[in-house]
Amino acid sequence: MPETRLNRLRHALQRESLDALALIPGPTLVHTAGTSFHLMERPVVLLATPGGEPPVLILPEFERSKGETSPLRPTLFTYGEDPSERAPAFAAALRHAGLAGKRIGVESLRMRFLELRLLEAAAPGATFVDAEKVTTELRLTKDAAELQAMRRAVQVAEQALRATVPLLRTGMTERQAASELTAQMLRAGSDSELPFPPIVASGPNSALPHATPTDRQLQPGDFLIIDWGAAVDGYISDLTRTLAFEPIDPELRRVHAIVLQANEAGRAAARPKVACAEVDRAARQVIETAGYGPRFTHRTGHGIGMEAHEPPYIRGDNAELLAPGMTFTVEPGVYLTGRGGVRIEDNVVITPDGAESLSTLDRSLLVIG
Amino acid sequence: MPETRLNRLRHALQRESLDALALIPGPTLVHTAGTSFHLMERPVVLLATPGGEPPVLILPEFERSKGETSPLRPTLFTYGEDPSERAPAFAAALRHAGLAGKRIGVESLRMRFLELRLLEAAAPGATFVDAEKVTTELRLTKDAAELQAMRRAVQVAEQALRATVPLLRTGMTERQAASELTAQMLRAGSDSELPFPPIVASGPNSALPHATPTDRQLQPGDFLIIDWGAAVDGYISDLTRTLAFEPIDPELRRVHAIVLQANEAGRAAARPKVACAEVDRAARQVIETAGYGPRFTHRTGHGIGMEAHEPPYIRGDNAELLAPGMTFTVEPGVYLTGRGGVRIEDNVVITPDGAESLSTLDRSLLVIG
Repeated sequence: MPETRLNRLRHALQRESLDALALIPGPTLVHTAGTSFHLMERPVVLLATPGGEPPVLILPEFERSKGETSPLRPTLFTYGEDPSERAPAFAAALRHAGLAGKRIGVESLRMRFLELRLLEAAAPGATFVDAEKVTTELRLTKDAAELQAMRRAVQVAEQALRATVPLLRTGMTERQAASELTAQMLRAGSDSELPFPPIVASGPNSALPHATPTDRQLQPGDFLIIDWGAAVDGYISDLTRTLAFEPIDPELRRVHAIVLQANEAGRAAARPKVACAEVDRAARQVIETAGYGPRFTHRTGHGIGMEAHEPPYIRGDNAELLAPGMTFTVEPGVYLTGRGGVRIEDNVVITPDGAESLSTLDRSLLVIG
Repeated sequence: MPETRLNRLRHALQRESLDALALIPGPTLVHTAGTSFHLMERPVVLLATPGGEPPVLILPEFERSKGETSPLRPTLFTYGEDPSERAPAFAAALRHAGLAGKRIGVESLRMRFLELRLLEAAAPGATFVDAEKVTTELRLTKDAAELQAMRRAVQVAEQALRATVPLLRTGMTERQAASELTAQMLRAGSDSELPFPPIVASGPNSALPHATPTDRQLQPGDFLIIDWGAAVDGYISDLTRTLAFEPIDPELRRVHAIVLQANEAGRAAARPKVACAEVDRAARQVIETAGYGPRFTHRTGHGIGMEAHEPPYIRGDNAELLAPGMTFTVEPGVYLTGRGGVRIEDNVVITPDGAESLSTLDRSLLVIG
């Protein structure tokens, strides 16, 4: 797998006229190298070049054995505990890769001052540029193994919600409900690092699209937005369901039916060669037609995979075309300030002729008690 | 609080001959500004200068209200959704702060390529340097409010372990035990983002100082290292206790007594004006005298606070002197490869005339079943 990915990376570098890509620990490095390193106070950098030579890996001497087990079989340059050993190791590595005066891509949202300055000093005259286009492309469509992990992450999340719902009671706080859901995800087999802490937003709090759980107690008449996700082998899920305690606010019940229709319309619009904007439009139109357009205050979705937010972004201004293997959320919502909100979020993968929802948990309004 | 911290920051900048400190979202920004921003794809930068003028905050227009509520009352420079609006906002901000050609400090382990390039372009001729010395100093000694949160984080962790121990059984996996402990920390009131996922390492795995929980089932005769911590208001705890299932390996029982003595010796050595190295030496000497020196393969401890690893580092080569308000771990360990290990970790704060352990949970070998 990493071998093929390295070849894709090399082709992308050629096309973008980049002489190298410099990666520090993070999802793209795991994706490319098939080995995970911690981001720490000691610099670790992988340098991949467009030619056939093995990548170069600069790392602490005590991590040498980890470098040696990387399926990429990189050429290693190590340094000891004295920070003065770092610059010579970087200089030797970039000289080996012939990068003086060359064009080197970096992940602009990840590359740190620490590694950048070492790279700049080690490759005199080199130019460093944002290579987001390359790294995005590498991770944009998921292969079978990646989809398998994402399916598992969805299953773990669904199982956890099913185990949590019977425990929900009025009087319980949002934080308690969120903690229980976290515990159930870990029990169901999630990686220990969740993609994000679950959101449980009740009553008026459910009208805040980015609420975090508070000490507010769940109350009769509350609408409850639960937005949660698990991780399996580093791949994530990100779902939302809306629940309610009786008595049900009749307008919010109608809103739920509208949001569900918008969710279905968004998923139905998703297929290869359709623009992200069209998926957004399909979902938004349902809500606008029902008169709640101004209450749908965010984009319809975002890509997911190794990160909880990654391309493709399902926004009205994104002309990017969908392609098989792309994975993203469809999560329309309507928020009535001071009263409550509804959001229904699924995770879909683009198939050769449409889209499949990885999540199948019942989307109807779940009334408790 | 943030006002005083800003003054300390200004004095530190003056002393280090820095014309500004540029912070992106992270613990130091929370510490300085009293407001938390998400690290995201849109750049957010706070610029603090040594003079009396208010700090400058560059942020997305849609976060303006958050900027306005910062207790620092920063001068705001905002930009819209079109990325081309960012450079002019940065240019205006750095012109306002008069930073062209000046010396600007950054956090070298945090500042990203994205923000660095915007800052470089906005302040022609400016020099950017690692300001770790300044930011470390700001957060190195904890004030009363910080210590209060850390005490709570220790209490939450201790309560969670007490609730978890009665549930431990042979046949349960390390992952299940770790999940249960996580759930108990959340129930006991931890922030939803734990400082690190709990480590539960059993039998031979307990001989690996950096083990992560596996699917290995707990077995009779196992030693069990549990290394866990909670977070309260963004401040963390980081504890370790060693447990065992009968029958007890007699050598490991002796090792436990030695490690406990080393833990006590390390804590007893900690007081103002003593070097970090002396604390390490005090703990290490106990283990060396007992003949297990080569099995104590790591430093004695590390600072804790807003991060799980921060200065001061309790290492044999660290001549830095302890001072009141510094908080760190004391965590000697002995690891017998293939058999098992023992580690006992406490969190201490330096007081005017000694050191106080924030953690008081029983340190003796806890025998289960």
